[in-house]
Amino acid sequence: MMIRDATSADATTIFELISALAKYEKDPDAVVTSPAALRLQLESANPPFECVLAEEEGVALGFALFFHNYSTWRGRPGVYLEDLFVPPEHRGRGVGFALLKHLAGIAVDRGCPRMEFAVLNWNELAMDFYREIGAEPLTEWTLWRLSDEALEALARQ
Amino acid sequence: MMIRDATSADATTIFELISALAKYEKDPDAVVTSPAALRLQLESANPPFECVLAEEEGVALGFALFFHNYSTWRGRPGVYLEDLFVPPEHRGRGVGFALLKHLAGIAVDRGCPRMEFAVLNWNELAMDFYREIGAEPLTEWTLWRLSDEALEALARQ
Repeated sequence: MMIRDATSADATTIFELISALAKYEKDPDAVVTSPAALRLQLESANPPFECVLAEEEGVALGFALFFHNYSTWRGRPGVYLEDLFVPPEHRGRGVGFALLKHLAGIAVDRGCPRMEFAVLNWNELAMDFYREIGAEPLTEWTLWRLSDEALEALARQ
Repeated sequence: MMIRDATSADATTIFELISALAKYEKDPDAVVTSPAALRLQLESANPPFECVLAEEEGVALGFALFFHNYSTWRGRPGVYLEDLFVPPEHRGRGVGFALLKHLAGIAVDRGCPRMEFAVLNWNELAMDFYREIGAEPLTEWTLWRLSDEALEALARQ
C-alpha cells in the first residue's frame, strides 16, 4: 500500500470515493459535484482542497481530503480533514490509520499544531478510532450553517 | 459605521479584538499569538485568513475573521467564520449584523453556497442571533481535535 498526493488526473477516482462516502453517510443524493468540476479545481492556481490517496497496484483503497483552517488563539494554520473514507471492502488493513498518520506528518511538517474534523454522532466505529489515536471531541461547541437562500437573503438585506 | 478589509497595518487592532474575545469566551490565557505574528501572516503571499473590521471615526467596533473551507458534497468552497466579536461597549447598534451581512455578500460574490461557524453551547445570545438570520445548528455532527503531542506522536508512529 502506498499513499500519494492526488492530482487532477485522479478527479474521477476522488469523485467515486466522495460518492461512496455520501452513500455510507446515508446521504447519497447530496453529492452535486462532478469529476470535471474536481479536475478544474485541482488544476487551478490555488486549489480549494488537497487530497491524498491510498492505493495498491493502481487500485484506490481510500482517500483523505483536507484544507487549511486557522486558529486565532494559536495564531497558526491547522489541518482540517473534510473527508476520510475507506470503502468497506478495503477495511481491516490499516488504510484509515495510514492516511491519518500521513496527514499528521503533513501537519507537523507545515507547523500546524492541530488536525480537526467533524464526526457524525452515530458513527461509533469512527469515534473509537479517533479516541485511540488521541483525538478529543469538542463537546462545548456546535457547528452552525447558513446556506443558499438564507445566505443570499442576508447578503441582500 | 463602515466595514472594510483589514490589512497588515491593523495587526494590533486584530490582536486586541482576539484577546477580548478570548476573555469573553472565558479562556483569556489561550491566546498565544502576537501582533507581529498576525502582521507577518497578513503580509505573506497567501495569508492564512482574511479579516474585516467595523469602525467609526478610526475606532474599531468589532471584527470578523474568516477563511475558506470546502464542501465535497457541494463541490464548492464556503466561508468559514472563525471569529466574530463586538466588544460589549459597542453592542446594540447592529455591528454584528452588519459584519455578518458583509460576509454573506463576500460569500455570494465568490460563489460560496454556505457560511459556517462554531458556537459555544452556552452562548444563548449568539444562538438566538444566528437563528434569526436563518442559520441552523448541525446537531448530528461533533467537532474533534487532535493536538500537539498527540498529533506529533501519530506522525512518528
